[in-house]
Order: sequence, then structure tokens, then C-alpha cells
Amino acid sequence: MDIYTLIKNEKDTGARLGKIKLRGKEYDTPMFMPVGTQATVKGLTPEMVKECGSAIILANTYHLWERPGEDIVYKAGGLHKFMNYDGPMLTDSGGFQVFSLAKPKDITEEGVHFKSTIDGKKLFLSPEKSIEIQEKLGADIIISFDECPGYPSTYEYMKNSVERTLRWAKRGKDVHKTDQLLFGVVQGGEYPDLRKYSAEELVKLDFPGYTIGGTSVGEGKDVMYKMITDATTYLPTNKPRYLMGVGDPIDIIEGVIRGIDMFDCVLPTRIARHGNAFTHHGKMNLKNAKYKEDFNHIEEECDCYTCKHYSRAYIRHLLMCDEMLAGTLLSIHNIRFLIKLTEDIRKNIETDTLLKFRDNFIKEYRK
Amino acid sequence: MDIYTLIKNEKDTGARLGKIKLRGKEYDTPMFMPVGTQATVKGLTPEMVKECGSAIILANTYHLWERPGEDIVYKAGGLHKFMNYDGPMLTDSGGFQVFSLAKPKDITEEGVHFKSTIDGKKLFLSPEKSIEIQEKLGADIIISFDECPGYPSTYEYMKNSVERTLRWAKRGKDVHKTDQLLFGVVQGGEYPDLRKYSAEELVKLDFPGYTIGGTSVGEGKDVMYKMITDATTYLPTNKPRYLMGVGDPIDIIEGVIRGIDMFDCVLPTRIARHGNAFTHHGKMNLKNAKYKEDFNHIEEECDCYTCKHYSRAYIRHLLMCDEMLAGTLLSIHNIRFLIKLTEDIRKNIETDTLLKFRDNFIKEYRK
Repeated sequence: MDIYTLIKNEKDTGARLGKIKLRGKEYDTPMFMPVGTQATVKGLTPEMVKECGSAIILANTYHLWERPGEDIVYKAGGLHKFMNYDGPMLTDSGGFQVFSLAKPKDITEEGVHFKSTIDGKKLFLSPEKSIEIQEKLGADIIISFDECPGYPSTYEYMKNSVERTLRWAKRGKDVHKTDQLLFGVVQGGEYPDLRKYSAEELVKLDFPGYTIGGTSVGEGKDVMYKMITDATTYLPTNKPRYLMGVGDPIDIIEGVIRGIDMFDCVLPTRIARHGNAFTHHGKMNLKNAKYKEDFNHIEEECDCYTCKHYSRAYIRHLLMCDEMLAGTLLSIHNIRFLIKLTEDIRKNIETDTLLKFRDNFIKEYRK
Repeated sequence: MDIYTLIKNEKDTGARLGKIKLRGKEYDTPMFMPVGTQATVKGLTPEMVKECGSAIILANTYHLWERPGEDIVYKAGGLHKFMNYDGPMLTDSGGFQVFSLAKPKDITEEGVHFKSTIDGKKLFLSPEKSIEIQEKLGADIIISFDECPGYPSTYEYMKNSVERTLRWAKRGKDVHKTDQLLFGVVQGGEYPDLRKYSAEELVKLDFPGYTIGGTSVGEGKDVMYKMITDATTYLPTNKPRYLMGVGDPIDIIEGVIRGIDMFDCVLPTRIARHGNAFTHHGKMNLKNAKYKEDFNHIEEECDCYTCKHYSRAYIRHLLMCDEMLAGTLLSIHNIRFLIKLTEDIRKNIETDTLLKFRDNFIKEYRK
């Protein structure tokens, strides 16, 4: 049951043009997946998200487990029906949220004990529980429960963690009953041999896709890029590779160059709510007084709904008045920006010009 | 230049079926007009507002004068272009905001001195200034600057105020230069002879439409309904009558019965942001725990976007998580509810059954 078709390897890089088949439809990769943490991409209707060209939408297992609870989503008919999105969906395992939000936590072989970030009540998440929740949520792609150690971690700690995450991956796979696609998570921190080991052992378990975890946890960009190569090198070419939680435009390009097919990040919607827009010349803060009488669109060449209809001055006005529409309009632009970026990336893989594209992009972006 | 065509008087009430012509298109009355205070109907795109069946959208002169300033809207090409709404628009005079928001204020013959509600700076609004601002904003209908006294006011105070508001109406009319339609405002509080006097004197000035101000300022419902009759009785039948700031469903029906053609109110969007939906059985607070596993739509018979796609349980989940989409979805439902109400009202004027419709509506609404 291969869901991924490799169409073309770029000549000069590890970049892959491909298609991923979900819910009976094929979607082009590399792709960017907008995040709908609480079963809603913040401030956008599902129709707006689709209009940005999106395919897969993410939702977060940890958040939905807490509120409204997986049983309610299940009774609603699953995530798609609950949130009115008929495109493909993906849920994460909850592992990253346990790592990043819940403190203190107690990691045992069985799973992780921690306290709710909402009401402080004691919670326990395990590989089995994560799968159980994700099966009830009903996304098309689900993720193995993993530990996501911080950076830096000692080699010793990371080695033990990788071993445990592999045992957790096996336990999750053993209890997984539905036809949802369960992806395995490569960990190993900045240690190449542990990344290799993690990848190779996961491949033995034969998942339909693999994700790369444990990046964007405090390491530098060069370290992160190396972590990617240290994982993708050992992953099969006929399965999709998904780099979790990465959405900086340059990181997306660098990730593709290292063989990544899928990305997700809250960045486009989060920076939007703070008044920021992605542009080809870096981030633009629309709150800046210089946009007060600037009746240009955010980017003239952008084809998003926001850039078709609204000026910088109008968006600034909305931001100054704390109007909800500001976040909505900027989120649409930012999500479209990243999806358009993946479209441009795909074109440049076709023409074997991705390195040149990257160099030009970075030059403009940092200008 | 009559903009209003009276199609039919209801047999048993003062209700009028009519059409109002704006921007070359005819719109049915009675109508409800959603409010976009800061040049945005809170949380909705203009397309969403249109999909609710809306015709005219309001914006507030006082707010836009403060932020971003009328000159910026003018430079943007006017309100329609600034906020991306190609349907008809209306701005109020700023008088009500000066009355309700700005304290203290000093009312002189010349105009009103008061302090900004945003930064405390000294401001001065006069009939001439209000027209000047509204001409720069560029709505299709604009409103005379009036004093909106509180309730109760003494007869003496109200008499002087009405006289001054009439002098202000004349001053505003004298400086008005554009082809925007300037409406006069009937004041007079709860005093029938002052309402009559205000209406008759305004009619002498021959405005293309008349609004009824000074309601919903603390008086009871019966007093308000009487204020309406005391004004509409003396207004010409070939001009539209607009009851400002009224959006309670029952008040809309009672207003129509007393000869009102146009209504506006922030109520549908304001209660939405607090989790409330209009229904035919009264307001529904979606935050209530009883909707946790309620997978029905807000109202099964409602044809709005929200009721087509989302359950009470999902909206409650969004509210519990403070998600922006909750306000958006509830606002769409509530605006559609009031617009659908005016559609039902129009049908019942056609069939001369409005009193029966009112009685049934109230019985269900208060059940």
C-alpha cells in the first residue's frame, strides 16, 4: 500500500518531485501543510484554507485530547466532519506538545506522566494511548508517539531515548487497527549514527511514511540541516518524508534539497496574528507607521485573496483597531506564500534549477 | 431624486413594502444593515456579509475619523475600495458615539467639544465637520449631525436640543456638496409634540430619507415603540425611514409595524463574540455545557453557512478554546437570522399577515 509516487529526483540535490495519494486523490509534493491545532486553522474557514491551495491540514492530538476530547470528535463523525474539511488530514502524536508544553514530566518505559497545561490535572500519554486517540480523531495520516528530547542532549541520553522511541513505535504499530496511515518518527538529535540507527530500525518496521522529529528545538540552522540529511539518507525512496514543525521559507527550501516532501508549521498563522506578512524581501510588519498611507498590496505579484483585494494601509488600520479580520487576511497571505513557495520549488525540481532558485530566494529574502 | 419606491402598505399596520435604489441597484425594504464600525464587520470578509443576504453595510464616522482618519480613507479611494465592499454603504454622523462614548462633553451651538476615547486628546465635532468627514469617507448614504440626549431628559432640555439639532441639520445640508444621500434625524425623546415638530421641520428641509434617533437610550420598549409612531406619522410616504441602532428581532418587527424601512445594529456580531446565537426560541448560549455533545446545527431550518456545515458541539469547542472562528461562525448565523427575519417580514406584508406573524414569532421567541 504505497501512497507515495516518486516522479523525479533533482539532478543536483536530494530534492524529490512526487505525489502522495490520500482519500482517493493525488497531491503534489513537496507540500506545505497548514496547522489547525484545535481543529481550526486559526481565523480561517476551511474554504479559505483550500483557496490557499492547501492539501493536507494538520490537527494536534494533545490539544484535541484535552478539548473537546477524542470521544466527542469521534461521536461527531471524526475530525473531517467535526471541522468541515473534506480534504486530507494529519494528526501528530502529542509527543512534541508533551515535550514543549508540559512541565514537569516523568518519562517512563510505559509512557509519559505530566500535568495538563489547561487545568493542571494529571495526565498520562503512551504509544498505545496516542494511537487510540488518533484513531478516534480519524485523520488520514497519524504519527507514532515519540520522545522529543531537548537540544543539546548528551549522547547517552539520546541513545536511550532513541531506543525507547523505537520500542514505542513498535508498540504503537502493534495496537494500530484502522486503515489510517501510521508514520514512524526518526529521532537521534544531532548525532549522525543515532539518526542513522533510528531511521534504519524504523524502516525495518515498514511504515508507509517517515517523519523527522527533534528539529527546531534550539539547535542552529546548520545543525538542523545536517540532522535532516542524517535521517533522509537512510529512508526508502518510495515513502514520503515529513519534516515536522518547520515553516521558515528558507528552511523549507533547504529541507527539500535534503529530500523532504512534507512540511507543517504554525508560523504563517502565528506571525499573522502579530501583524507580520511573509514577503520575498523578508517579513513585513504591517503595524509599522510607514504603511499608514501605503495603498499597495502586501506583494503585488501575490495571487492570494488578501493581495487581490486589500491594501497595506487597510490591514494596518485593522491591526491598529485590533480587528479580527487583520489576522485572517494576513494568515491567508502567509499560508498562500508558503504553498506558492512549494509550487515554485516543484517547478525548479522539474527544471533542475533548485540551487539557483534557493540562492536567488535567499538573496532577495535577506536583502 | 427619489430613491424610495413604496410598493405596498400592509392592510392592518403601518408596515411598508418598498425598494430603495442605490448605486444603480434596487434593494428590498424593510431591510437590516450589518454594522462595520471600523470599516469591517467584525470577523467577517465582505463576501461573507454578502452571502448573508446583506445590502447596505454601515460604518461609523466617529471611529473612522479617529482611526485611520478620513483623509486616509479618501486617499484609498473611499470606504468601498478601502474595505473591499462594492455594495451600498452608509455612515452615521458621529453624534451617537459622542453621546454614548465621549465623557465629559461640552455641547455648544457651534458643535460638541469632547475628549478622544482612544488617546484623550481634545476633539471637536460640528455639523459641518461631520459632513466633511462623511464626504471624504464616501458612503452612499450619510447622516446629519445631531444631538442624542439621554433618557429621561426634561421637556425644556429636549425642546432646546431639538431646535439646535434642526439648526445643525440645516447647517449640514448647506455645506453638503457631493451626490451622497444626506438623511435628516428626527429627535424629540419621548415627547410626542417634539417628535412631531422635529419630523415636520426636517421634512421642510426635504431630505431624501429620514432616520429616527434617540431610541435605545434607556427608555422601555413601549416608550420606544411610541417614539417611532410619533415620528413616522409625520414623515412623507415617498422617503425611506431608518430606525438607528435597533436590532433586537422583536423590535425590528414592531418597528416595521410602525412604518420603519431600515434597521442597523451591532447586536448580531456583539452577542456572537460572547457565544450567543439568535434562534426562533430566543438566544442560545453556545458556551453552555449542554451543547458539548450536541451535533445538531444551531437551527436545522436555517440556511446560513454556519448551519449548513457546523454543529453546536463544534462551535462550543471553538468558544472553549477562544478560537476566532467561533465569533465568525456565530456572526454569520446572527446576521443571516436578522436578514432572514426581514425577508419573512416582507412576505407577511405582501400577504397582510404581519400581526399574526409577530404574535407567532414572539410566542416562539419567548417560549
